[in-house]
Amino acid sequence: MQIKYLDQVRARNPLVHNITNIVSANFSANGLLAIGASPIMADSVDEMAELAAASSAVVLNIGTLNVHKVEAMLAAGKSANRAGVPVVLDPVGAGFTALRRDTTARLLREIRFAAVRGNAGEMAHIAGVAWQAKGVDAGSGSADLSEIAQRIAQQHGCIAAISGETDYISDGSRTAKLSNGTPLFPKVTASGCLLSTVVGAFAAVAEPGDMLHAVAEACTVYAVAGELAAQGLQDTQSGSFAVALIDQLGAINAQQAAARARVEWL
Amino acid sequence: MQIKYLDQVRARNPLVHNITNIVSANFSANGLLAIGASPIMADSVDEMAELAAASSAVVLNIGTLNVHKVEAMLAAGKSANRAGVPVVLDPVGAGFTALRRDTTARLLREIRFAAVRGNAGEMAHIAGVAWQAKGVDAGSGSADLSEIAQRIAQQHGCIAAISGETDYISDGSRTAKLSNGTPLFPKVTASGCLLSTVVGAFAAVAEPGDMLHAVAEACTVYAVAGELAAQGLQDTQSGSFAVALIDQLGAINAQQAAARARVEWL
Amino acid sequence: MQIKYLDQVRARNPLVHNITNIVSANFSANGLLAIGASPIMADSVDEMAELAAASSAVVLNIGTLNVHKVEAMLAAGKSANRAGVPVVLDPVGAGFTALRRDTTARLLREIRFAAVRGNAGEMAHIAGVAWQAKGVDAGSGSADLSEIAQRIAQQHGCIAAISGETDYISDGSRTAKLSNGTPLFPKVTASGCLLSTVVGAFAAVAEPGDMLHAVAEACTVYAVAGELAAQGLQDTQSGSFAVALIDQLGAINAQQAAARARVEWL
Repeated sequence: MQIKYLDQVRARNPLVHNITNIVSANFSANGLLAIGASPIMADSVDEMAELAAASSAVVLNIGTLNVHKVEAMLAAGKSANRAGVPVVLDPVGAGFTALRRDTTARLLREIRFAAVRGNAGEMAHIAGVAWQAKGVDAGSGSADLSEIAQRIAQQHGCIAAISGETDYISDGSRTAKLSNGTPLFPKVTASGCLLSTVVGAFAAVAEPGDMLHAVAEACTVYAVAGELAAQGLQDTQSGSFAVALIDQLGAINAQQAAARARVEWL
Repeated sequence: MQIKYLDQVRARNPLVHNITNIVSANFSANGLLAIGASPIMADSVDEMAELAAASSAVVLNIGTLNVHKVEAMLAAGKSANRAGVPVVLDPVGAGFTALRRDTTARLLREIRFAAVRGNAGEMAHIAGVAWQAKGVDAGSGSADLSEIAQRIAQQHGCIAAISGETDYISDGSRTAKLSNGTPLFPKVTASGCLLSTVVGAFAAVAEPGDMLHAVAEACTVYAVAGELAAQGLQDTQSGSFAVALIDQLGAINAQQAAARARVEWL
Repeated sequence: MQIKYLDQVRARNPLVHNITNIVSANFSANGLLAIGASPIMADSVDEMAELAAASSAVVLNIGTLNVHKVEAMLAAGKSANRAGVPVVLDPVGAGFTALRRDTTARLLREIRFAAVRGNAGEMAHIAGVAWQAKGVDAGSGSADLSEIAQRIAQQHGCIAAISGETDYISDGSRTAKLSNGTPLFPKVTASGCLLSTVVGAFAAVAEPGDMLHAVAEACTVYAVAGELAAQGLQDTQSGSFAVALIDQLGAINAQQAAARARVEWL
């Protein structure tokens, strides 16, 4: 896989606006700064339209959701749509409660997303496929994840990215299968949330018509940074891994990412 | 002390639902993942009843409190009570303001708690004993902490756990005195909040009628993990300790905890 | 520069009340504990007046702002003013949206601040000087930062502190120019928020009429702790730096800070 946007992120420092949850806010902001983007976290409806239009990407994350945040997300998403700013959805625990199911459906109906990124359980819910999710964790199931990604991309006209041991990133016709990563990722809370906002940073600098590559590259750079961060660590050292991941998001370069990338196009 | 529930937590990955504060959310989630549980943080009243009933334990933490969270806590607690899901209370800064005093009293009146865990100042307030607390910190006083734990357990029909240099865990008749720990604990914010949610994870897997042991074991495993994390660190290295604590919550095994446990039954 | 208040902070452990954002809450609390203060984070209007009056300093931070927090800030600030408790303002992203512009103006009009601390972009906005800020980051501009600090101090009768590669701290007549620091600071989110609350801790123990020195000392101790934390780290290791900074805020002593301080009085 060609790594062509990482240097762009660093050169242009895109302002990425996040409506996110109280678990991920700090970690996501530090990860964005490390990769070279400029984060802002805000969630009052009173500044959403203004803020979204002035950003280079908007990331909507439905963790620690409430009705006020839903209003803020709708305002931010619509404003970004009008301004041509790419919007990313992280449907945290999408199928777990009525509030999350309704919000996910409403956001997908009223906002045009450049990308939707979630774990298998969340994306299976969006695709309407049976899956045993567990709260905000991926859970388990036997559905074909590549097909789920493809279906979501087709239905919603976006890039769909499913993260897990293997990642699938699809635009509805082509699908990247990404085999990089480390078992330490699911042991760090908000590591998925951080990836979603990194996707936002890459979407911000993507050339027109090249969103599939931009999202796949974001997932690849992130997964490889995780591999590098995990080097020398035990599988139980999730505290050390979270720190090392931030370091590696700052240190990783295009050559390293390209050399280690294990991407297959389906 | 027999360590019999740690492996159960890891085998069953209980879903622990937290209504918690903006200071502890990330740290508590990472600690829960490390010990082997599956965290969810949420606080909108609109999904509380549903979420609490689907969880294996519910932990109510009154830090960064507001009236909306109080409603969410009541909804979650009552739903968990109906579903037979154990509920843990962390009465952060319980005596410090009218809002916290009223909320603590109301929660204890309207919800049946499996366990209440706090520092000396918070628990002295609940027991109605004079104590010089300092904000959300323990403060100082001369009351008998073992008696305070016993009294709270009797009055509220729960396990009462007081954390500090020495921990006291009581069911109203028997009381465990736990001497493990490190001076680094009070230097890490939310280290008490994290313990409360670890108590939730152990409560989730406790056998019927064995809640005193489950809570005492949770406190023991946590304190020993802290001792191990503090090895080789200066007392000023609270940043490094917070990271090492997460690592040790992942690494600690039943034998280590049993071998280092310093528990006396009163 | 004489370092006279660091030991006072450690001896008196001032209770510092923070109304802050979801990004900085954990990091700020850990930094306050490390330096020797006692943090409390809370933002419900229902306990603000009570809490602020019982604290040794109040720090108002307008990140992740909403209308409820504005009410809480006004209540806390006015209560602190009545009780003679010093109040610090961190005007995060002050000029970026109407909500932030209006809130900053209103807080400065209705509350007497002991100190206002922000980055160049935020402080230029307050001073009414042209500057190209970028979200919550400093951005770039050519105005004279020393003059901006002086003007804000004069207009608002407070100490004004501008942080960046060079810091300027002014009471309107005298201005300290501080050249300590590390390029890693702007790579760690909320490192400015943490400094603001450290300023609160020093303000809490300042002798009457000595606020300029107290704020300048806080900035110096913090910047030197950052230099020490950065030793041996690459400029990309922002994750490790955040951890080391907390460690160094705990370890730094008055002699180290005085020996390394590079302060010039203008």
